[in-house]
Amino acid sequence: MTNPILRTLAGETVRPLPIWFMRQAGRHLPEYKAVRATTPDFISFCLNPEKAAEVTLQPIRRYGMDAAILFADILLIPGAMGRKVEFIKGTGPVLEPMAVEDVAGLTVEGAAAELSPVYETVRRVRAELDASRTLIGFAGAPWTVATYMIEGRGTPTKEVAKRFAYAHPKEIGVMLDKLADATIEYLVGQAQAGAQVLKVFESWAQGLSPSQFEMLVIKPTKRIVEGVRAAGVEVPIMGFPRAAGIKAIAYAGETGVDALALGTDCPMDVVRAALPSLPLQGNLDPLALRMGGEVLRRAVDGVLESVSGPHIFNLGHGVAPDVQIANVEAVIAHVRGEEARYVPGVVG
Amino acid sequence: MTNPILRTLAGETVRPLPIWFMRQAGRHLPEYKAVRATTPDFISFCLNPEKAAEVTLQPIRRYGMDAAILFADILLIPGAMGRKVEFIKGTGPVLEPMAVEDVAGLTVEGAAAELSPVYETVRRVRAELDASRTLIGFAGAPWTVATYMIEGRGTPTKEVAKRFAYAHPKEIGVMLDKLADATIEYLVGQAQAGAQVLKVFESWAQGLSPSQFEMLVIKPTKRIVEGVRAAGVEVPIMGFPRAAGIKAIAYAGETGVDALALGTDCPMDVVRAALPSLPLQGNLDPLALRMGGEVLRRAVDGVLESVSGPHIFNLGHGVAPDVQIANVEAVIAHVRGEEARYVPGVVG
Repeated sequence: MTNPILRTLAGETVRPLPIWFMRQAGRHLPEYKAVRATTPDFISFCLNPEKAAEVTLQPIRRYGMDAAILFADILLIPGAMGRKVEFIKGTGPVLEPMAVEDVAGLTVEGAAAELSPVYETVRRVRAELDASRTLIGFAGAPWTVATYMIEGRGTPTKEVAKRFAYAHPKEIGVMLDKLADATIEYLVGQAQAGAQVLKVFESWAQGLSPSQFEMLVIKPTKRIVEGVRAAGVEVPIMGFPRAAGIKAIAYAGETGVDALALGTDCPMDVVRAALPSLPLQGNLDPLALRMGGEVLRRAVDGVLESVSGPHIFNLGHGVAPDVQIANVEAVIAHVRGEEARYVPGVVG
Repeated sequence: MTNPILRTLAGETVRPLPIWFMRQAGRHLPEYKAVRATTPDFISFCLNPEKAAEVTLQPIRRYGMDAAILFADILLIPGAMGRKVEFIKGTGPVLEPMAVEDVAGLTVEGAAAELSPVYETVRRVRAELDASRTLIGFAGAPWTVATYMIEGRGTPTKEVAKRFAYAHPKEIGVMLDKLADATIEYLVGQAQAGAQVLKVFESWAQGLSPSQFEMLVIKPTKRIVEGVRAAGVEVPIMGFPRAAGIKAIAYAGETGVDALALGTDCPMDVVRAALPSLPLQGNLDPLALRMGGEVLRRAVDGVLESVSGPHIFNLGHGVAPDVQIANVEAVIAHVRGEEARYVPGVVG
């Protein structure tokens, strides 16, 4: 097998490190913006297999990343489960906030089937990728998706969602189970269409108490891992409990994920000591990528010095729209041991 | 010695757990609001020994907490070092943002002496406290204070300060050293006036890369611990690297602090396993305190079940203004093994 990411996820220490970037398909690329402009509605864009496949492949063509990640959004699932979801330019996602009485009406049946255009995107991308590149499918983790569903939008503290979870432990459990069950079918659909890795994004693991983390993050993620396995799908599952802090270690063991992606704040050497053989991914500071120049060179060196064992190079979060293409190229060259030409970033 | 917090900080396992709350003197107390209203300017209020001592003592009188924490603010130091600091009602602290050229002008000499009213507050409080209660002095950690000085206000991401630190490693080092040196004198002054514990608040440890954390958090905090010791002050020093995640463990060892306070997100049992004998403090969810009722009862039980060894019960962050007095009383009773009468919180 000559695919460096699949080898790494099978437990092999591959060097140079395989590399891809979260949100590598996005607004920092002019070719992305050109395609994106042709379908103003974001959900329609995500559900257009031709266009979604095209933008998924753009960073592979331009940069030669080792993985393509399906272009989609974590909030397609609530839409497929009967909730109203809109993306408003300049605001982001806006959903009809859920009350506790709405939990009973959330529909699992048929939700994953609603997202069949996504599987078509996967098939198209896979057909275009050579065997050395990996196609990564993904979904939002139930708690992260639930925060948007309950609050109606992205918020800094998630206080409304945390209150909901504290006040209604039974109902949040039902809601997360339903989200997990729809997500299982959705991820199985992606794998059956050709996704070779499935990544579960827990973007809002931050600031939860240990008992809330157990109930809201670990339990639903474990349900997803077990459900995907029960459906006979054997592709590696990567968990990304962003900003989970110390609890990321227990997450890895208790959920059963095959690999752990980590945010910028995690010391990779400490995580490696705690998890000697688990494939890891991360964790270049996205701010350093925006700043470029020597700051970026030192930050890449810092990550390279901290990693060992099976590891995939990535950011700790997504590529920002103001990132310079030359700097993405330089990081890839640097990680691959080639000459890296860093340029100054845009001053923010 | 019959002082439960000092016994705990000396390494003894004291039960029932000693207890105090961050921001226990504050807007949830009508008696605080009454005194506060008599001096509208917040800095003048902090620097009024009579009034600051009075509000420091209020929660001890009302609740019988095991510790009083000096009423002051982490932004007194930049003011004493020659920067303009204002507190604007409804906005919070506003500072003149620092440029890199301003670092040279930061004055260490005389800064701690400027804060002599704070030492007078300490003396007054200490004179009122019986031997079973502990008086805790404190300061902001250099990086946390620097974020406000560079950004001019509190911001969610601290991006401007992080950019400053990345772009100007030499100058941020000088700035943090100066802040540390002024803070050493300030903490020594508090200890000499009668503070029995010194707490260093690193409220903005969050989201730093491991190398930035080393440079911005660990190094200056170590400098403070060593400087306070070099001045012959032997009182316990507690570090509070809020939201430092996995790096909190290394922080404890590398800075040399005598005790570690932790935020709500930390699993206390995991921290205890990593640091078998270090006195710890925390970490009830402040949101549970606001919500009250059975949510709060369960959250207190969760903390009690997770702690072992020398431990001081506290919140993971400060008491919010909408907290019910009855619930603070109930938590104290619960922790002390008495009957706890929880009431519903204000719906936020």
